[in-house]
Amino acid sequence: MPKNDLLLTACRREPTPRTPVWIMRQAGRYLPQYRAVRARTDFLSLCKSPELAAEVTLQPVELLGVDAAIIFSDILLPAEAMGLSLSLDDAGPHFADPIRSAADVARLAIPDPERELRFVGEALRLTKRELAERVPLIGFTGAPFTLAAYMIEGGSTKNFLRTKRFLYEEPRLAEQLFEKLTQTLALSLRAQIRAGADLVQVFDSWGGELSPADFERWSLPYLSRLVEAAHAEGAPAILFATGASTLLERLARTGADVVGLDWRIEPDVARARLGAGVGIQGNLDPCALFLPDDELEARILDTLRRAGPVGHIFNLGHGILPPTQPEKARFMVERVHALSERLRAERGATP
Amino acid sequence: MPKNDLLLTACRREPTPRTPVWIMRQAGRYLPQYRAVRARTDFLSLCKSPELAAEVTLQPVELLGVDAAIIFSDILLPAEAMGLSLSLDDAGPHFADPIRSAADVARLAIPDPERELRFVGEALRLTKRELAERVPLIGFTGAPFTLAAYMIEGGSTKNFLRTKRFLYEEPRLAEQLFEKLTQTLALSLRAQIRAGADLVQVFDSWGGELSPADFERWSLPYLSRLVEAAHAEGAPAILFATGASTLLERLARTGADVVGLDWRIEPDVARARLGAGVGIQGNLDPCALFLPDDELEARILDTLRRAGPVGHIFNLGHGILPPTQPEKARFMVERVHALSERLRAERGATP
Repeated sequence: MPKNDLLLTACRREPTPRTPVWIMRQAGRYLPQYRAVRARTDFLSLCKSPELAAEVTLQPVELLGVDAAIIFSDILLPAEAMGLSLSLDDAGPHFADPIRSAADVARLAIPDPERELRFVGEALRLTKRELAERVPLIGFTGAPFTLAAYMIEGGSTKNFLRTKRFLYEEPRLAEQLFEKLTQTLALSLRAQIRAGADLVQVFDSWGGELSPADFERWSLPYLSRLVEAAHAEGAPAILFATGASTLLERLARTGADVVGLDWRIEPDVARARLGAGVGIQGNLDPCALFLPDDELEARILDTLRRAGPVGHIFNLGHGILPPTQPEKARFMVERVHALSERLRAERGATP
Repeated sequence: MPKNDLLLTACRREPTPRTPVWIMRQAGRYLPQYRAVRARTDFLSLCKSPELAAEVTLQPVELLGVDAAIIFSDILLPAEAMGLSLSLDDAGPHFADPIRSAADVARLAIPDPERELRFVGEALRLTKRELAERVPLIGFTGAPFTLAAYMIEGGSTKNFLRTKRFLYEEPRLAEQLFEKLTQTLALSLRAQIRAGADLVQVFDSWGGELSPADFERWSLPYLSRLVEAAHAEGAPAILFATGASTLLERLARTGADVVGLDWRIEPDVARARLGAGVGIQGNLDPCALFLPDDELEARILDTLRRAGPVGHIFNLGHGILPPTQPEKARFMVERVHALSERLRAERGATP
C-alpha cells in the first residue's frame, strides 16, 4: 500500500485529509525534463524503453508533487501489438493498414501482454520499484470503441463517418472487432495491475462522438468488461470520456469506481446526476492554466467546492497542453492541496 | 405569411398537423445540382452572387420537400466585411491577418449590411420572390464567440488555446472585439429579416468548447443581444451550439424561441431540462443517413416520440455530410412528415 493513499481512498469514496490530484498527460511535453529525454529518442521508442518510460513517469511525481504516477505509454500500442502498423506524424497517429474488411479483422491477433507488450509490464515494475510506495501507480488502456475508431479511420477524422458506417453496415464484423479489442485490452489491464498498477484509467476519448443509442450498443458493454477485468485483479477503475456529459449516468453503470469529467460540466451538476455511489474526477479546463494566478486559484476553489470533499480526484478536464508553464502546474497541485485542506477545516468548524 | 407555416407555428410552440423539417447545410455538396453550380465558381464567389446563391438556396426545397429554405451564405462573411482577409482551403477557413493586438481590434469596421454585405440582402430578396411564399426563409449569423474564435485563431485549432488566452490575458480588448462583432451581427440579422428572412438561426459552432463559467461571460450576453435584434424585427430566433448539451438551459435564457440540439442528447432529456417555455430543434446524427432505411426510420420515429408533437423542428444534430445520398435525405423528410402525422393521429385516438 502506498504511503500516500489519498487517491485509492478517494476511489473508495472514503474521507481524505485533502483532495488528491494528478494531471492527465502529466508526463509530457510541457516538462523540459521530459523534452530532454525525448530529444534522445522518438515517441514510440520512448514508450517501448522501460527505463526511459519509468524515468519520465517519475518526473511529475518529483517535480510537481502529484498524488499519483501514471505509466508513460500510449493507448494505441495494443493495436500495434494486434498486428497493425502504427506511426505518428504531425497530424497524429496513423495506421498504414486500417481495418476495412472481414479479412482485416480476421488477421488481428489477441496479443499476450507479457510478450508483445512486455515493455509496458517492465516499465511498470521498474517504476513501482523506484516509486518505493511514495504514491499509487496508475495503469491505463483506451476503450474498445476509441481504439476501433482509430483502427477503422486509419488517421484523424472530423465526423467519424467511416467508423459509424462500419458499425451500421457491418455490425457482425464490428462485433468481432470489438470482441478482439476487449479481450486484448482486458488482458492488458490485468497484466498492468499484476505488474504493479494500483489502479487503472480507461480512456474512451471518442466515445462522446456517439449518440446515446450508439454508445449503449457500441461502447458501454465493452467498457463494463474492462471495469470487471480491473476489479477481478482487485484494482479500482476510473473511466474517462471527452465530450460525454450526456453519457455520465451510463459511464457509471459500468461499475467504474470513478467517472472522469471534462471541463464542460460543473462538478456539482455531475454529482447531482450521478449520486453518491460513484466518485468523480476532474475537471479544470486545461486552458485555465494560462489564467493569472488569482483567477486560476478562484477556479480551483470553485471546482473543489462544487465537487465536495469525498470521492473527488482533482484533475484537468483534458490532457495538459504542451505550451503550459510547469510552474503553473506545480502551483495548481499546491493550491489543490492547501485549499482542499482549508475547506475541510472550515467544514469541520461549521456546526 | 408562407402557405407552409409549420416552422413558424412550431417556433411559437403551437400545434402543427405534422412536424416541420429542414436540414442544416441542406444547400450543399451532397446535392449534384449544387455541385453543378459550384463547378462554375468558387465557394465565396457563390456566396456573393445573389442569383447563384438564390438558385442553390431553392434546390433542397424543390428536391427534398423541406419545410424551410435557409439562405446560402457563410458565417465568416461578416468578419471579412469587418476588414479581415478571408480565404478557404482544404483545411477550412483561414484569415491571413488574425486578431492578436489592440491595433487589430481597432482596425475592425462595423459594416453596413446593405453596403458591404449587400449580396446577402439581394440573395434573400431574390429567393423570397422565387419562393413565392411556399415555405419560410431562414436567415442566419454565427455567434460573436464563434466568429471571434475564428478571427483570433486565424485557422483551425484543436483546443482553442489562443482564443482562450486572448480572453484571459486581454479581457478588456476581448470585450471591445465582442462589442464590434455583436453590433455587426445584430445589424446583419436585422437587415436579413428586412430583406425577407421570416426567422433566423444563430450558430455558436464553438460555444461548446467553453466551460460553463466562460460561456456565461464570453458568449451568453452577446447571444442574448442577437436574439433581441431578431425579436425587434418581429422574427423568431433559433440558437444552435454544437457539443453544448451542458449549456442548454443557458441557451434558453437568451430568450431564443428554439434551442437546437446536437445528436449527443435525447430530445426528451433536453425537454425535461428546458421545460415547455422553449422549442427544440434536431437532432438525428448526420451519420444516421448511412443506416439501412428500416433502421433510419426507427431512429426518426424515436426522435419524434422523444421530442413530442409541439414545439419541435426536426433536423439533423449537425450539418448534412457531403457523402450523403440525396435520396436518403429525401427519405428522411418524407418519413418525418408521414410518421409525425401518424403519431398525432394515434395520440388523438388515445383517450
